[in-house]
Amino acid sequence: MTQNIYDDPTFYQAYRRLDRSVQGLGGAPEWPALQALLPDVRRARIVDLGCGFGWVCRWAREKGAASVLGVDVSENMLAQARSMTADPGISYEKADLERLQLPVGSFDVAYSSLALHYVENLGRLFEQINRATVSGGRLVFSVEHPLFTAPSCPDWIGGAGGRCVWPLDGYLSEGPRSTDWLAKGVIKQHRTIATYLNLLIAAKFTILHVEEWGPTPEQITTHPSWALERERPAFLLISAQR
Amino acid sequence: MTQNIYDDPTFYQAYRRLDRSVQGLGGAPEWPALQALLPDVRRARIVDLGCGFGWVCRWAREKGAASVLGVDVSENMLAQARSMTADPGISYEKADLERLQLPVGSFDVAYSSLALHYVENLGRLFEQINRATVSGGRLVFSVEHPLFTAPSCPDWIGGAGGRCVWPLDGYLSEGPRSTDWLAKGVIKQHRTIATYLNLLIAAKFTILHVEEWGPTPEQITTHPSWALERERPAFLLISAQR
Repeated sequence: MTQNIYDDPTFYQAYRRLDRSVQGLGGAPEWPALQALLPDVRRARIVDLGCGFGWVCRWAREKGAASVLGVDVSENMLAQARSMTADPGISYEKADLERLQLPVGSFDVAYSSLALHYVENLGRLFEQINRATVSGGRLVFSVEHPLFTAPSCPDWIGGAGGRCVWPLDGYLSEGPRSTDWLAKGVIKQHRTIATYLNLLIAAKFTILHVEEWGPTPEQITTHPSWALERERPAFLLISAQR
Repeated sequence: MTQNIYDDPTFYQAYRRLDRSVQGLGGAPEWPALQALLPDVRRARIVDLGCGFGWVCRWAREKGAASVLGVDVSENMLAQARSMTADPGISYEKADLERLQLPVGSFDVAYSSLALHYVENLGRLFEQINRATVSGGRLVFSVEHPLFTAPSCPDWIGGAGGRCVWPLDGYLSEGPRSTDWLAKGVIKQHRTIATYLNLLIAAKFTILHVEEWGPTPEQITTHPSWALERERPAFLLISAQR
């Protein structure tokens, strides 16, 4: 089973104070780019894998989705998500993405934000998603960029007037990485961009678009400290079609 | 027009002494991986974009290709390539890949090794290749990996018993990079992996496989100093289908 760090009290108390937890989609700088990869969700049946507090589930229903299933492994997050809606078109289910079973041909869109880099057996999950979506259906997801997960010491070198560089190593050594982010010993799975793409292709998806996300000039004007994020992308966004 | 560095005397004299120039395909460590992406070339009509000394043109004919057209901008390289074969199934043509015009539907396989990172208008070239290949035809190519072309100072930091890191910056800033490699001021075009893929998709190719190349364990046993190349991939290999 994937480490369920979101039910670690230290992690959860810190996570729920992040901009993206408090403000929702408006607090996630990559959301406009991810949203742009989604098809029209009106009348669509959607599954959100790693739905967290359910921000996208509620957004999709506001945009006219027929139904949304939010899946997450965290009791904390599902409890909070359930408390935020009474919409009968949204249902939540506790499940480990390593073992998730979805009904065949039941969804038009599968979505996942910053969850799949926790999954060890991603090939299996992509195959499940393929079975669960209709022909022509879409899979749209974001993960931490492999350049973010790879390094043994993921901290900028330099600065203070000088050049800042990202100390890349270990890029081709795939596997678990333990980092201290909000709590000690958070385990993520590092895999290369090529592996994400080849697993999708092996699961019979067609790649539609790939984005290595950095902040836009407008975002940097509002948040000048984000400029550094253009030196190495923080997120990888992919859209694929069944 | 793309800078024709291969006809710069300093560059050419150094380039022709490299392992991959002297030994041919056996001197190119990524060749086994690139070859594995090629379809069966028997009876195929092949175009090699940036054919250099023509090693792959001759290899393809030995493997039973019907015909091979080698295209290059360098007079030096084409003269050498022509001197190495009398095969009537191989023809060579001098052309700038920025302006190349190929006959419609004339090729089963388009191949390119380490040439497309010199091309400024790559979208136009992918569209030309799409027009020039048959339905179901393949495009297989290698370029310098974007992690290799991005940095402002592309040299390892550290070493001598300590950890070596690749000083990544500028990844999302696409455009020309000038480096001193065999000669001063060699101009290459940096673009992200996402851009390579999205340009292919926009030109109506389907992505079949992506490889971020590093040496195999066997290659590292033979050449221990290559181990460092697994910290950040040196080459990007892509196979796509029309």
